[in-house]
Amino acid sequence: MSLRVTVWGENVHERENELVRSIYPKGMHQCIADALNEDTGIEARTATLDQPEHGLSEAALESTDVLTWWGHKAHAKVSDEVVARVQQRVLQGMGLIVLHSGHYSKIFKRLMGTSCSLTWREAGERERLWVCNPGHPIARGIDRFIELEEEEMYGEPFGVPPPEEQVFISWFQGGEVFRSGNCYRRGNGKIFYFRPGHEAYPTYHQAPIQQVLRNAVHWAKPDGLWIDTCPNVPVEQAREKIVQRGGSVHEPGAEGFR
Amino acid sequence: MSLRVTVWGENVHERENELVRSIYPKGMHQCIADALNEDTGIEARTATLDQPEHGLSEAALESTDVLTWWGHKAHAKVSDEVVARVQQRVLQGMGLIVLHSGHYSKIFKRLMGTSCSLTWREAGERERLWVCNPGHPIARGIDRFIELEEEEMYGEPFGVPPPEEQVFISWFQGGEVFRSGNCYRRGNGKIFYFRPGHEAYPTYHQAPIQQVLRNAVHWAKPDGLWIDTCPNVPVEQAREKIVQRGGSVHEPGAEGFR
Amino acid sequence: MSLRVTVWGENVHERENELVRSIYPKGMHQCIADALNEDTGIEARTATLDQPEHGLSEAALESTDVLTWWGHKAHAKVSDEVVARVQQRVLQGMGLIVLHSGHYSKIFKRLMGTSCSLTWREAGERERLWVCNPGHPIARGIDRFIELEEEEMYGEPFGVPPPEEQVFISWFQGGEVFRSGNCYRRGNGKIFYFRPGHEAYPTYHQAPIQQVLRNAVHWAKPDGLWIDTCPNVPVEQAREKIVQRGGSVHEPGAEGFR
Amino acid sequence: MSLRVTVWGENVHERENELVRSIYPKGMHQCIADALNEDTGIEARTATLDQPEHGLSEAALESTDVLTWWGHKAHAKVSDEVVARVQQRVLQGMGLIVLHSGHYSKIFKRLMGTSCSLTWREAGERERLWVCNPGHPIARGIDRFIELEEEEMYGEPFGVPPPEEQVFISWFQGGEVFRSGNCYRRGNGKIFYFRPGHEAYPTYHQAPIQQVLRNAVHWAKPDGLWIDTCPNVPVEQAREKIVQRGGSVHEPGAEGFR
Repeated sequence: MSLRVTVWGENVHERENELVRSIYPKGMHQCIADALNEDTGIEARTATLDQPEHGLSEAALESTDVLTWWGHKAHAKVSDEVVARVQQRVLQGMGLIVLHSGHYSKIFKRLMGTSCSLTWREAGERERLWVCNPGHPIARGIDRFIELEEEEMYGEPFGVPPPEEQVFISWFQGGEVFRSGNCYRRGNGKIFYFRPGHEAYPTYHQAPIQQVLRNAVHWAKPDGLWIDTCPNVPVEQAREKIVQRGGSVHEPGAEGFR
Repeated sequence: MSLRVTVWGENVHERENELVRSIYPKGMHQCIADALNEDTGIEARTATLDQPEHGLSEAALESTDVLTWWGHKAHAKVSDEVVARVQQRVLQGMGLIVLHSGHYSKIFKRLMGTSCSLTWREAGERERLWVCNPGHPIARGIDRFIELEEEEMYGEPFGVPPPEEQVFISWFQGGEVFRSGNCYRRGNGKIFYFRPGHEAYPTYHQAPIQQVLRNAVHWAKPDGLWIDTCPNVPVEQAREKIVQRGGSVHEPGAEGFR
Repeated sequence: MSLRVTVWGENVHERENELVRSIYPKGMHQCIADALNEDTGIEARTATLDQPEHGLSEAALESTDVLTWWGHKAHAKVSDEVVARVQQRVLQGMGLIVLHSGHYSKIFKRLMGTSCSLTWREAGERERLWVCNPGHPIARGIDRFIELEEEEMYGEPFGVPPPEEQVFISWFQGGEVFRSGNCYRRGNGKIFYFRPGHEAYPTYHQAPIQQVLRNAVHWAKPDGLWIDTCPNVPVEQAREKIVQRGGSVHEPGAEGFR
Repeated sequence: MSLRVTVWGENVHERENELVRSIYPKGMHQCIADALNEDTGIEARTATLDQPEHGLSEAALESTDVLTWWGHKAHAKVSDEVVARVQQRVLQGMGLIVLHSGHYSKIFKRLMGTSCSLTWREAGERERLWVCNPGHPIARGIDRFIELEEEEMYGEPFGVPPPEEQVFISWFQGGEVFRSGNCYRRGNGKIFYFRPGHEAYPTYHQAPIQQVLRNAVHWAKPDGLWIDTCPNVPVEQAREKIVQRGGSVHEPGAEGFR
């Protein structure tokens, strides 16, 4: 009955960069999965880029209620086939939580349809995430804000569609702002983008960040899956009696062009 | 000072199917362009699939304020490179009007991020498009509804993000409904999806349909282009004085990973 | 642990009109409450216009998770004080389900900010509510549509803000369409407008309608209440150190103008 | 052919408070009107609280394309009748620009349906308004941000419905953020909320603020007025032939209950 979460991690910086490895010796994905597993209602496992099918086979996705996604320098190495599969699963109902530099991941850009671009600065500056709606389930337990002493700056304009719910907006010490917690629904799936999490800082070790991740998993869980079959409705099955009229391009019973 | 419109047509049915050719002897694209050119504020030209780069070269898009798109059986033949170019131009500010079976075009699915699927029936049945907001500029001159005696049916569920403005909803004789006039903004571009226009019926010869197309072009015109550069903001250029702290993954002056 | 639902009914037609009384001998509100109470996770009670404070005292609202509202000919008799109280409770997190002719209730117009007007016809015609997203929790168990053999027609334009989620759109035998299942969030409260339910027909006795009502109650339940205090933040409590500058209009510690 | 703008000002602080009078000797409304009149396509006049019907008679509104609203300490003195009139006019198509402390005005709260509350601090601190979409017509000429050296702070949570377009977000020196430029459509009217403008500082004398006001007037101009009559559609006028069935509550030709 637990929520089945797959924590996807690129797992490149952790292997190639000593600083990142020192912060996340087991990888960022493992740190995130451990934080989620503190919630007895969540069962989190991990998947990484270097696994076959990036650990995201059909079977893996079929047993995933919510997928979290962290990637940065290897976005281009994610296979288009896996991205298409994840997109289809989100449209059917799987929740998706996109983290930090995942704003430029193939899956996020594909689901948003926009550039997903932003301005940025890596200076270890203070970030303060303000809650725009303290009653929102993703903000449960956070009260009014989260402070992170060292983070990368992401600044507006953020090239995304207008969020359907704005949970957080960030203030940065160097003078910028950013829409940091954004909710979307696409098909039957819920999508949450959460800004913090630069690999050079211990962000995913922070208790309030871990709390938001757990909250977001619960918010994004499927209400039930629905598979879109796009059926042809034959004339004789129309709910109101009609007769065929006029010309025709499709053969009777044809599936239509896609 | 006129709005420069490119009317894109797949132009396959018109050449391969006698019925369609009899309705649109010069092609559907030419019929649409002629209708737009009745407005002295619009200068419409056409482009088709079989032209080099489908008639949508960089130069062609740079001199296009609004692009209209009709395709059906040859969606798959549109090159991914041209689709990416059109998407980028929309995000910069070019308007896009997607017509009828264009719901399954690569460009529409890419900008929506969803399946764009629907149910359908080709039976020459009556369609009535109701205006959800008679004050909307796209509905100017239409009053309360448009009736089409013969059309293909498209039915809900329509697999798109919630429209930002709902201009039309269709009633079908056989018993279905459909969100038929849907407004979106993506980046700086405005997108309008307009349902009617099955190739087996003379829909684009109807005066109210032509009126809506002209209205939509005016609605979708760019407010000005803006090109998203996603800049790095160096520490010394931060608006508030900060000093570099903590670890670092990016080289100074690096462009960031995409 | 059950959801506490208050079913509010105007209870005027049922007392004054023999036809309505014959369909709903215990009142429409009791019929709705009975349908909700078939769900063991719901505990529904009723409240009516003629009770003190219309049955909606502070205490009653404090023990209500979701309120359903049916009114028609006596909208003007609902006290403004009670309406303000209900509005405040919705903004704090209480769910609200507005039924049929409740589109013109004071509480719905106040929460929407618009005219909430529509076209209409009372002819006992067939209505078919199409599901726009079969994966939506409010549509659970409904599959693709609900048919009602006799209903009042409501037609577009419906004078409401664009729904955040469109669950149902209605088809009417006489030729109109209507946005029939509309989701909104206002403050921390979720609002669902559900069209069917004219008092001259046995709509609330229909199983699929009862199913939608139960689904909607679960969807609209509070994620937690949050009371908005709009605090002044004194200079010395600012998260970043600042000093008072410039002129001042407010006395120190003042509450601000409302 | 010019846009007719009515600049509404409470005009209380300017008369009662020496500091405010020194900044705005002719009143804030006159300063704003002068700024708008620098645009030859705009014809701005003023109206104030102390005039008959607050200067907002039926005739005045009928000759107004866009209304701007600044109020603060005298919100409660605005008559409900005038507020209802303004609301109706907005729903018909008149643009409305709500300024700063106007967030608590009767007209804004009525059109939003929410608390419109926020946190605040009057400390003359630095505000930087970031442009979330540099291609938006309201941001024309602003590039990436506006800096105001002394302003009052408004902080999240801002108790409004999710903005349909987010034009500006503010950064404050003391550590807060705020959604500062918010677009809504209600009925046929466009509404823009613009945060800056505390009476203790010379905000409306700043060139970029004046530019935004002019831009916003052009954005908010009516596409045409439409008056919602909410008609009954008699059975014999239904577009599809139907016959009266079932019971009836309304008399033939009745107007319906409101």
